[in-house]
Amino acid sequence: MNKKVKPSILAGFMELLPREQLIFNDILSKIIKVYEQNGFMPMDTPVIEKEEVLLAKAGGETEKQIYRFNKGNTPLALRFDLTVPLARFVAQYMGELTFPFKRYQIGKVYRGEKSQKSRYREFYQCDLDIIGNKELSIGNDALLISTITSVFNEIGLKGFKFLLSNRKIISGLLEELDIKEKADVFRVIDRYDKVGKDRFLQLLYNVVGEEKANVINEIISFKGTNKELISKLKNIDIENETFKAGICEIEEMILYLELFKICEEYYKIDLKIIRGLDYYTGSVFETVLEGYEKYGSICSGGRYNNLAQYYTDKNLPGVGISIGLTRLFSILKEIGFIDNYECILVTDVLIVPIGDTINYCSKVWKLLQDNGIKSEIYFEEGKLKKKLSYANTLNIKNVIIIGEDECSKGKIIYKNMVSGAQETIELEDLLLKFQNEKVMLK
Amino acid sequence: MNKKVKPSILAGFMELLPREQLIFNDILSKIIKVYEQNGFMPMDTPVIEKEEVLLAKAGGETEKQIYRFNKGNTPLALRFDLTVPLARFVAQYMGELTFPFKRYQIGKVYRGEKSQKSRYREFYQCDLDIIGNKELSIGNDALLISTITSVFNEIGLKGFKFLLSNRKIISGLLEELDIKEKADVFRVIDRYDKVGKDRFLQLLYNVVGEEKANVINEIISFKGTNKELISKLKNIDIENETFKAGICEIEEMILYLELFKICEEYYKIDLKIIRGLDYYTGSVFETVLEGYEKYGSICSGGRYNNLAQYYTDKNLPGVGISIGLTRLFSILKEIGFIDNYECILVTDVLIVPIGDTINYCSKVWKLLQDNGIKSEIYFEEGKLKKKLSYANTLNIKNVIIIGEDECSKGKIIYKNMVSGAQETIELEDLLLKFQNEKVMLK
Repeated sequence: MNKKVKPSILAGFMELLPREQLIFNDILSKIIKVYEQNGFMPMDTPVIEKEEVLLAKAGGETEKQIYRFNKGNTPLALRFDLTVPLARFVAQYMGELTFPFKRYQIGKVYRGEKSQKSRYREFYQCDLDIIGNKELSIGNDALLISTITSVFNEIGLKGFKFLLSNRKIISGLLEELDIKEKADVFRVIDRYDKVGKDRFLQLLYNVVGEEKANVINEIISFKGTNKELISKLKNIDIENETFKAGICEIEEMILYLELFKICEEYYKIDLKIIRGLDYYTGSVFETVLEGYEKYGSICSGGRYNNLAQYYTDKNLPGVGISIGLTRLFSILKEIGFIDNYECILVTDVLIVPIGDTINYCSKVWKLLQDNGIKSEIYFEEGKLKKKLSYANTLNIKNVIIIGEDECSKGKIIYKNMVSGAQETIELEDLLLKFQNEKVMLK
Repeated sequence: MNKKVKPSILAGFMELLPREQLIFNDILSKIIKVYEQNGFMPMDTPVIEKEEVLLAKAGGETEKQIYRFNKGNTPLALRFDLTVPLARFVAQYMGELTFPFKRYQIGKVYRGEKSQKSRYREFYQCDLDIIGNKELSIGNDALLISTITSVFNEIGLKGFKFLLSNRKIISGLLEELDIKEKADVFRVIDRYDKVGKDRFLQLLYNVVGEEKANVINEIISFKGTNKELISKLKNIDIENETFKAGICEIEEMILYLELFKICEEYYKIDLKIIRGLDYYTGSVFETVLEGYEKYGSICSGGRYNNLAQYYTDKNLPGVGISIGLTRLFSILKEIGFIDNYECILVTDVLIVPIGDTINYCSKVWKLLQDNGIKSEIYFEEGKLKKKLSYANTLNIKNVIIIGEDECSKGKIIYKNMVSGAQETIELEDLLLKFQNEKVMLK
């Protein structure tokens, strides 16, 4: 037993120490609470699926990043998002689901990307999707934005802004301009923020020529309030039906957001939003943290005409959005949000036996537990100082010390670890103290 | 787009429809609640780790089952339990952890076993472990049993029984009998329940001869209460120190369980418990459902002298226990427990617009949401019947119908989906109704 393996994890994988993990889990539980509050049902799918299922739609960049391997003769892959499994799930169990099917799924996904800051190879996605049977109201697109807004408010995150667009607008515009290289134009627009305005224009010239590039650039650069933007779009002399449908949809979307009382500072139409690598067909969403735009989108999504087309002939339009929680968490760490996050403690009370008092300590512990007070006994031998230091490092605010004297008198020593104050009291008094505090803390 | 991929998942993977998923998640959240109530901190580790790290300890059966693959030149593996990652984690971050380190971890693990009933290749483990720095009281072993008891009580599971043993007892006995083939004997005892008494004796004869086999068999077949068993063990004329230490430890364990007020019908000493493939060095636990013993253990664990010995020279004794939730859930389905599980509903109220009333509906929805009432709007067009059927299939008990008439009068139609009763009321009256109900439901 002398040769040791160096304990370490792979590059690009996140692992947290207990205090940060507590915060991560607290954020996660708030996400779940809000998702369920809005009528989404939980779903869970395997991390490993048949390669042919997961790759039915993949291509290009994504395909290269996928973890693939064989077990026996079966080609397998690790899921690289939760949308493909959702499409497969809906096609597979269609007859047993109720439509619109509103589900959330939270789980880890895998992409063997080049490891870099804030980019992880294993990361949590917190997906919300709504799948319709043949039809799906734009109200659902707005519900996603509304739900994520509630999530961010619940977490206490400020300064987020949804950037909204609709692919039909640019798509229709390109049709009107008789541009065949749609995918290339999308790719160029998608890189706008990365390359800057001048380089963007240059790239666009290269694809469609100067004249058409200027038309496109003028439209995607429109400034103004959401209402003004929509009005400008409506006034453009373009007859293309897709273009018009896109404007209609985004207008309806904005209307819903107003009905849902989403503060207008939280969302903005931005026609440069494309969601490049994905195959959205209508609404597209990204979310930036104002002042931290360089980190990119912390929550993105959009609408598919036909979510499950690789698995079924049925027409199932869907709209979804996803918080990339691992990445968001790493950004929140970097900008100091996590340091200031109110830390939730697991244990309210530590019971410390001195001498042979485990009997009485167990009674006290049981009483606290029965009253819903999170408590633990320090079982190990050692000096009081060591035992108190356990409470200290774990941020446990209340300690009960029980020596043989307390034991025989039916009392306890209560030590407040914040003030350092210590007093000998009846057990019932302590219970009352905690219960009052609990009520107060609510 | 005509060639479709058949939507399906791999054999040996569990996937649930929404209603069952809700129950699964409810059980999961109760497990977390009880784990945290008892002072355990959350932990999360990557699903993929370096092969050399995960295989540092593995061997034999386990090694064959592991999912292994390369990405680039790095040999990777999927975790096959949560104990090995824990050992690695503790060795890696030792200086930043507080000992005893009490953590829980809930996550999926992977074993490419032969697919069979109630055996899954991907399954959730819900682990509890306590790691000491050099020393670790037996109180911790008892705390694990106490915590799992609280979990099962919280879930409402009846008829579970912990089977407890301590490997030192059999180990010391074998030393006393001068038997070198320890591992073989352990393997034979471990199979007792599978092969039956007669075959077991035969197998034991083959390894150690008739005389010694009879001694072993007599001891592991002791009958009686826990106290009687301990007293019988103490009266055996064996001087081996390991044997005696084992008896001491199990006696102390039982004492703690009594102090913690664990009902004696929940646990029983059973020296046939070995936990064959694992490398426990002290306490070992299994849990059966009485009447359903054939399903095997639903919750197992034990103690390691030196948890992280493959990664560090530090002496870190640990004790752990784990609920195999995927397997437990499949058993609970089979024995009818899930059918009778009180179903938690995601949505309390469905709001159904009739005609152009989305404005008013949104107002009502916002009001309900602000009062913490889980509610959703049915956005799609269609007949009332179709909309009500959505509520019906999803078990939503309350529907608010809003037509243009209600809209103009500031009222709503409330329909109770259970009784079918329908009435036109003021919105405030409805709110009051729900709030009273919420209070009552607590």
